[in-house]
Amino acid sequence: MGLATAPAEIWGSLERLRAAAPLVHNITNVVVTNWTANVLLAIGASPAMVEGTDEAEELAGVASALVVNVGTLSAPTAAAMRLATRRALEAGVPWVLDPVAVGVLSYRSRLAADLLQHRPGAIRGNASEVLSLAGSGGGRGKGVDSTADSADAIDSAHSLARRTGAVVAVTGAVDQVTDGETVVAIHNGSPMMTRVTGTGCAATALIGAFLAAQPDPLAAVCHALCVFGIAGELAAEKASGPGTFQIQLLDALHALDEPTIAARARIA
Amino acid sequence: MGLATAPAEIWGSLERLRAAAPLVHNITNVVVTNWTANVLLAIGASPAMVEGTDEAEELAGVASALVVNVGTLSAPTAAAMRLATRRALEAGVPWVLDPVAVGVLSYRSRLAADLLQHRPGAIRGNASEVLSLAGSGGGRGKGVDSTADSADAIDSAHSLARRTGAVVAVTGAVDQVTDGETVVAIHNGSPMMTRVTGTGCAATALIGAFLAAQPDPLAAVCHALCVFGIAGELAAEKASGPGTFQIQLLDALHALDEPTIAARARIA
Amino acid sequence: MGLATAPAEIWGSLERLRAAAPLVHNITNVVVTNWTANVLLAIGASPAMVEGTDEAEELAGVASALVVNVGTLSAPTAAAMRLATRRALEAGVPWVLDPVAVGVLSYRSRLAADLLQHRPGAIRGNASEVLSLAGSGGGRGKGVDSTADSADAIDSAHSLARRTGAVVAVTGAVDQVTDGETVVAIHNGSPMMTRVTGTGCAATALIGAFLAAQPDPLAAVCHALCVFGIAGELAAEKASGPGTFQIQLLDALHALDEPTIAARARIA
Repeated sequence: MGLATAPAEIWGSLERLRAAAPLVHNITNVVVTNWTANVLLAIGASPAMVEGTDEAEELAGVASALVVNVGTLSAPTAAAMRLATRRALEAGVPWVLDPVAVGVLSYRSRLAADLLQHRPGAIRGNASEVLSLAGSGGGRGKGVDSTADSADAIDSAHSLARRTGAVVAVTGAVDQVTDGETVVAIHNGSPMMTRVTGTGCAATALIGAFLAAQPDPLAAVCHALCVFGIAGELAAEKASGPGTFQIQLLDALHALDEPTIAARARIA
Repeated sequence: MGLATAPAEIWGSLERLRAAAPLVHNITNVVVTNWTANVLLAIGASPAMVEGTDEAEELAGVASALVVNVGTLSAPTAAAMRLATRRALEAGVPWVLDPVAVGVLSYRSRLAADLLQHRPGAIRGNASEVLSLAGSGGGRGKGVDSTADSADAIDSAHSLARRTGAVVAVTGAVDQVTDGETVVAIHNGSPMMTRVTGTGCAATALIGAFLAAQPDPLAAVCHALCVFGIAGELAAEKASGPGTFQIQLLDALHALDEPTIAARARIA
Repeated sequence: MGLATAPAEIWGSLERLRAAAPLVHNITNVVVTNWTANVLLAIGASPAMVEGTDEAEELAGVASALVVNVGTLSAPTAAAMRLATRRALEAGVPWVLDPVAVGVLSYRSRLAADLLQHRPGAIRGNASEVLSLAGSGGGRGKGVDSTADSADAIDSAHSLARRTGAVVAVTGAVDQVTDGETVVAIHNGSPMMTRVTGTGCAATALIGAFLAAQPDPLAAVCHALCVFGIAGELAAEKASGPGTFQIQLLDALHALDEPTIAARARIA
């Protein structure tokens, strides 16, 4: 296999990311714009949040990666997503889809299904979202929260990856990642991550940044999630609640070094 | 009266809220989306921020409560608010209105007046906003800030409550709450709450969460404001300025327990 | 010259700002709305973030200053900016332009050029943005980041100031400010300010607040940038990374006093 999940390889991806400071274009929801930009800055990327229909397509063609998150949608934003992902496909810019609450609301479920035609390099969702996007039924979550377990969604992730060519990540207490052949489990993280809004969105944005720095998409997704999970563990150790946790998470992403990754990475 | 404002009853509402983790649908302003979601997560609710005209109506029908805040308006957002509040009324989903800066800007003043037809369970504003919404005149604030005192708005709150059937809260140094008969004063809180954006919006969102957990709307509003005020006091004791205050407020909401409520609640 | 850059004069502007608590109207990007409002509250202003085409014009006519930031644009927001800046010009309300990523995306480059007709009192950008807005070419940044040095943009700032009548600030490791005659260099600040999103936007918003409190626009811009740089230094000394830095920056702005300004201001 030669699957690149050793700590030295995770660190190698992060070092390349920080050296390149890739321009990561985000079309994301209005809840997490600031947070996502700060997460990307903390890891060493150069975020740009451009969602207008008059601008998103232009930027998608010159960015190093594109992140599309359907968390809050309007008709213009949906149009911008269609244009930008098509341009990314044409320009060979890797992009990642976050299908927030797909399966709960019909408008976004149709949009997400359409966007798959523009071949995302990666998809990250919770179990309910992946079940729904894969068309497996049973994926109706509670708002933005999953009502299923990430292990329950492995089969769906598998078939979704095979059908779309994307690496699919189902995040939860344990993160499951597959390219349709290999399945990787990442055991890093903290329960506190569910008490802050936008941690899933942040994971997706980090996947975008790693896709720009690591040519192997399966490795990129696994490295991003492992790095994020480790930062979550470090933050939880210093936090006294969800407010301080959110702040410490940014500090931890910024400070992350090779010994910490070596000591903490738990990828199987 | 049997008005349920004893600390044990406040704690009972909070316990039920945390056990149910109600899905609270927010159509709020672009300034406070992230903050509001984190406040709701910190208290134990499950927030969803969905404002698109293609989605807001659908979600309003299945949520446990709806929060409508007119702080930043566009024509599509205003349309989403009309659709969602009507659906909430039809579906029996309690909803709360935050008339930010009503009286200052004519477009939102007309919208807020229209939304009253869909019978909010509660309304929370500062004195200028409530004076204006009640049609009492003299309610023109300075931007989002009140130029009047909450005590000045009691009569207006009373008539607004009688006319609309909503519980009306006028927040300020002392919060005044009325259902058109009883008036309750809540003395919890901290002056630091005026130095952070979105504390009023957060109070309104918490009212939404408590409306989902506590069937008596007068009790729900009073409990929400008391809990928020206590968290503000705790945060102010730990903060060294408005930045750390904002963060400590989330930690305090998350950690709030029965002994703290018993020791600090000041409801008359 | 009598240029008012002595610490006592900086403090005088800040004291007047805090006493007046000017209503600062912001039409800004969706990434920094919350952050900008909190920065303005921390310094003592009264922020209002109103961007809808149905409301922005009305508020611009009664505000004490207007801040226009093109960081995320839609057609309605662009229309609101045109209406609000024209009204500000008519009403004599000072306004400041932040040309985020102008030179990178053609739609916003055209808009920013148009808005200059409504005569901003001040313009603040990074070197790439000012080079581009001045029509000097060579201004194409990397997303929202500059690819040029602030010293490289002095000539462009000079000609832009002469052409538009605005005070032009080019911010970077050293901030350069000119009214087309005098050039002032401000050496305060911290490299950590580049690791948090929206510090440039915050500087622009503070310029808006100081324009409302200090009638000399060159002094207003210099005082705002010096105060912000000092707060950045104080925050960096207390921070352990970009998350805590952001929070400490708000605390530092709120606590800033005359002795600290006297000890730290570095304006030439």
